[in-house]
Amino acid sequence: MTYQELSEQIAQKQSYLCVGLDTDLKKLPHHLLTEPDPVFAFNRAIIDATADLAVAYKPNIAFYEAQGPRGWESLQKTLDYIPANCFTIADAKRGDIGNTSGLYARAFFDPAAAGLHFDSITVAPYMGHDSVTPFLDYEGKWVILLALTSNPGSADFQRQSLGEQELFEAVIETANSWAGPDRIMFVVGATQAAELGRIRQLAPKNFLLVPGVGAQGGSLEDVSRYGLTTDGGLLVNASRSILYASGGTDFARRARAEAVSLQQEMARHLQAIR
Amino acid sequence: MTYQELSEQIAQKQSYLCVGLDTDLKKLPHHLLTEPDPVFAFNRAIIDATADLAVAYKPNIAFYEAQGPRGWESLQKTLDYIPANCFTIADAKRGDIGNTSGLYARAFFDPAAAGLHFDSITVAPYMGHDSVTPFLDYEGKWVILLALTSNPGSADFQRQSLGEQELFEAVIETANSWAGPDRIMFVVGATQAAELGRIRQLAPKNFLLVPGVGAQGGSLEDVSRYGLTTDGGLLVNASRSILYASGGTDFARRARAEAVSLQQEMARHLQAIR
Repeated sequence: MTYQELSEQIAQKQSYLCVGLDTDLKKLPHHLLTEPDPVFAFNRAIIDATADLAVAYKPNIAFYEAQGPRGWESLQKTLDYIPANCFTIADAKRGDIGNTSGLYARAFFDPAAAGLHFDSITVAPYMGHDSVTPFLDYEGKWVILLALTSNPGSADFQRQSLGEQELFEAVIETANSWAGPDRIMFVVGATQAAELGRIRQLAPKNFLLVPGVGAQGGSLEDVSRYGLTTDGGLLVNASRSILYASGGTDFARRARAEAVSLQQEMARHLQAIR
Repeated sequence: MTYQELSEQIAQKQSYLCVGLDTDLKKLPHHLLTEPDPVFAFNRAIIDATADLAVAYKPNIAFYEAQGPRGWESLQKTLDYIPANCFTIADAKRGDIGNTSGLYARAFFDPAAAGLHFDSITVAPYMGHDSVTPFLDYEGKWVILLALTSNPGSADFQRQSLGEQELFEAVIETANSWAGPDRIMFVVGATQAAELGRIRQLAPKNFLLVPGVGAQGGSLEDVSRYGLTTDGGLLVNASRSILYASGGTDFARRARAEAVSLQQEMARHLQAIR
């Protein structure tokens, strides 16, 4: 999906909601456990309940990897089920030396390899340019680079001062020399809304993937005020608050209600910046 | 495997060789392609040919992930085949917020989850302490944290100055406050031998996992001079130079010859520091 197409989806759905498919077998409603593939059965119901409200889906790969080979089968079926008008994110936080990053790119981008065909992947920046650019060699695919994450440990290194700027700012500035905003997004935690103004100056056009609204305590209003652009410019992720809104047979209906509530607030913020 | 046991293996085998199982289906000898699982057939032959010379095996997970679910099956069989007296490293370079890193730890450490039971995993430090400590919650398992990698991109962020020290030095110093040298190792590229003296001051007891000897151009002599300790303190990885020493039916014999040559040089370096 191109920058323009993603922007149009946001305008059309009046939403910049990304649903995080962090599907934990231990948290599934009990009635699904008799399904042949409970994780996929759950994801399918969540996608059915939210596809008109979400512009993106983001499976966190750890949840699938922890199930072994059958987890990768569930991931494949889930990815294949996501409608074509939704942007797909492999939240994998990969990154290695050049030839090895090339293999991770093949794993997530090239359906002829492992079967997967994500639009984008999250990548850790620590190893620098040649750990990131192999992902950009896949035309039309996106890198979503960790910049300022939502967790407490973000203070350990990302907030360290390099003199004029902090490490996360150097990451954004440097990465923007590798490719344009049509190929690179940045991860900025919703708990870091105070820094979004500075980030927007360094990355005026880039989409920002913002986790941490909901369970992690970030504010959608703050994130939207500082992060929205006339192109949209935000993908705000919610996972647990939608997936586990109910642990009963009404889980999909309750998930939709949560998604509707987020989408309606997003529509207000989008109208405010027009 | 404990620090003491690893140290004893090094003394006994007179070797600190780690064989990197970066097994690429495209580079396998043709006669193996008719095997039911060519990747495992290749790895088994390499392990048989080197197990008395190597103290560790390090499958790079990207190579398996790029094969989809059958790649994970090959990885499982390979791990199960590695002799118990060899240290096992999942070279996965994972790292995410706390609860998600916990799932990656489960995937690679808890055989009841995905079936894998590695001794250790490589982890990227960018997200800080709560992205690393969930791996340390598994008693007896190790974190091998990226510090100063062998690739050109290591200059982009790892070598940035934080004033008194560079980022990779802050990573080592900070991580050593999370756990002792019996639980944390660091990745230091063999191409970075000039920095090994400084690293040894910050990490006098930690094992260093050193890739980049051979194909990437690092010198085993330099690495050994600055990196060896009386406990061993080094795991020097070779992948391509051993795996692909020959592309013919003699691949295992030629792989062994490469490993013997490295082990003999290591024995000399070990004797020199006694």
